[in-house]
Amino acid sequence: MCEANAYLMKEKEPALIMESVDRIEPEEDGICIVNIFGDQKLIKGFIHSVSLVDHKIFIQENA
Amino acid sequence: MCEANAYLMKEKEPALIMESVDRIEPEEDGICIVNIFGDQKLIKGFIHSVSLVDHKIFIQENA
Repeated sequence: MCEANAYLMKEKEPALIMESVDRIEPEEDGICIVNIFGDQKLIKGFIHSVSLVDHKIFIQENA
Repeated sequence: MCEANAYLMKEKEPALIMESVDRIEPEEDGICIVNIFGDQKLIKGFIHSVSLVDHKIFIQENA
């Protein structure tokens, strides 16, 4: 499987918010992160960057 | 390897713009897509959504 872990960009260092992420979809007020088990998290933010070989997706909260 | 293919969102259907994508980083005026071979593409847009199990990343051009 080629899922990744989602991290929220913080001042000091990124914080892991979800493992085994499959999909990230835009929502009205941000994004919905869905893992391979179907768990969902709504974040008021956007995809900042990705590093797939490292299995990392970085999420930035809206200002 | 767990890279994905990057598609540009078009009216009819997404258009493949880069295979074997490793990283996508924000740039001043959009994003930089980098594949596992180091090839780069600058797009005036943002990451719309991802579907990692399908190895797909969708890019939306700025309006």
